[in-house]
Amino acid sequence: MEHIFFPPLSRIAVCGGTHGNEMSGVYLVREWQKQKVDESGALSITTVLSNPPAVNVCRRYTQTDLNRCFTNALLSSPITDTTPYEMRRAQELNAQLGPKGSEKAMDLLIDIHNTTANMGLCLIFYSSDLMMLHIYKYIQSKMPSVPVRAIIMDIPLSEAFSLESVGKHGFAIEVGPQPNGVLRADIFNLVKKSLDLAFEWIQEFNSGCTFKAGEVEAFTFVKSVDYPRDPATGEITAAIHPQLQDADFKLLRRGDPIFLSFSGETVKYDGEDNYPYFVNECAYYESKTAFKLAEKTTMTFPSISVKN
Amino acid sequence: MEHIFFPPLSRIAVCGGTHGNEMSGVYLVREWQKQKVDESGALSITTVLSNPPAVNVCRRYTQTDLNRCFTNALLSSPITDTTPYEMRRAQELNAQLGPKGSEKAMDLLIDIHNTTANMGLCLIFYSSDLMMLHIYKYIQSKMPSVPVRAIIMDIPLSEAFSLESVGKHGFAIEVGPQPNGVLRADIFNLVKKSLDLAFEWIQEFNSGCTFKAGEVEAFTFVKSVDYPRDPATGEITAAIHPQLQDADFKLLRRGDPIFLSFSGETVKYDGEDNYPYFVNECAYYESKTAFKLAEKTTMTFPSISVKN
Repeated sequence: MEHIFFPPLSRIAVCGGTHGNEMSGVYLVREWQKQKVDESGALSITTVLSNPPAVNVCRRYTQTDLNRCFTNALLSSPITDTTPYEMRRAQELNAQLGPKGSEKAMDLLIDIHNTTANMGLCLIFYSSDLMMLHIYKYIQSKMPSVPVRAIIMDIPLSEAFSLESVGKHGFAIEVGPQPNGVLRADIFNLVKKSLDLAFEWIQEFNSGCTFKAGEVEAFTFVKSVDYPRDPATGEITAAIHPQLQDADFKLLRRGDPIFLSFSGETVKYDGEDNYPYFVNECAYYESKTAFKLAEKTTMTFPSISVKN
Repeated sequence: MEHIFFPPLSRIAVCGGTHGNEMSGVYLVREWQKQKVDESGALSITTVLSNPPAVNVCRRYTQTDLNRCFTNALLSSPITDTTPYEMRRAQELNAQLGPKGSEKAMDLLIDIHNTTANMGLCLIFYSSDLMMLHIYKYIQSKMPSVPVRAIIMDIPLSEAFSLESVGKHGFAIEVGPQPNGVLRADIFNLVKKSLDLAFEWIQEFNSGCTFKAGEVEAFTFVKSVDYPRDPATGEITAAIHPQLQDADFKLLRRGDPIFLSFSGETVKYDGEDNYPYFVNECAYYESKTAFKLAEKTTMTFPSISVKN
């Protein structure tokens, strides 16, 4: 297998508060803004609180979901008086940290998220990014006591909608379970540790280490499953079944219970065997997603090192 | 010890959505509004979604916390154009379910709440209500696999601020942990079960059963403890320590860790031995409460039966 050279990672952005009620990123970014000094001299670290008005009111967003606004189409659409705040803010962030797809973009953009689902620590990134597989493998190998997983989105970069797509490389850290508006020390420390490891990897990479070829397991999106709903009112009529609740990434088989209706009936799964994730994520009630399903795949990657 | 007679409990109100993002009550009340028929013929059950505008936007409240608006002073204050929605709604609910302290008030008012804290199932009521001790003991005895506790508020009824104080008798059901905006089937079923048991007790009481004198353990509020904060900005500088997180109602002793600062220092408890509860409750960040402390007491109560 070929060996690949990448330019050094010099300009790094760490973002939090892209969703204003996901507290790990909000407090980590605030803490870094107080403390962080550039220890190596070679790295430039930019910390960004992505959506301050949403953070101030402790809501996911004020007018529309900021983390769906980073497609090429939305980033280039004209701003008018009626443009939602978050669409304007996305263009500001793109100017500051991108422009997406350009030479001026951050070398690496890390965006910190939380979920109410029992997902442990996940790295989410786009399929085209081999370097992320190396960072993922590194973090996973150094945190053996924690479930660390990769979720790979198979979307062309132009249609990639999330903030991390603005960097030349990027990933989201998605950690749970943590209620919105709540900060848990255990979750905070997981995120802090994974960030420290990412920066450790960056230092090693920039200093000339070769990272060997290898393979990792990763999850890729198959489909979303909605709650059962009353056809007349649209209201949900069942909750996630206790056997599926908190069982993110445990293989779901045909016949397994997935919902328990308010009147007590069990709804069983009748699809292909797949891995559920984002099970009972708070923010997905409005987007009609009770859980998502993924396939598990093995990704192989070539050895890489820095091109100076 | 004397025996006490109470009039029958004929008119019962079950309320949910007093806080619009606490989903157990919202869905239980909606479900009851579809299904409930008066089985006994003797009971009149009123179900109320207390704060519909807050439920619609899935927030605790729209302008001010509804569940702090039921003091005599606020219930009798004049309504003007600038009166917050929830203060007006409190007066509406008082007209419908009370008036508080009057003969016309509901015989029993049950209000359903959730918390992000690991509090199990709690019944919260005012100290003057002996009947509640009986209902509490009954529910606890019938749910042996679940931690069922009583929290007794020692406030004169005129200053009692919460919705359940509008009924002749009343209690709040407080269940957790459940994130705001999320419905968990396990928590939903706990609430459903405790309500079914409360109605079972009411039927037995109304039909002439004598409930024996006895005693129960209960918790009474001592004080609230705030997060460590930056004196300049007011922002919190520490999270609940992992050893205290999820440890509601476990005795806290001098020297036990209570906070972990974002830079890694442990803050230890230096007060009297007490029982923490509402540990890391989402809604209490804004009211500057990291956790509350309670004393455990033993409450004795006389035998009771119905006076027909």
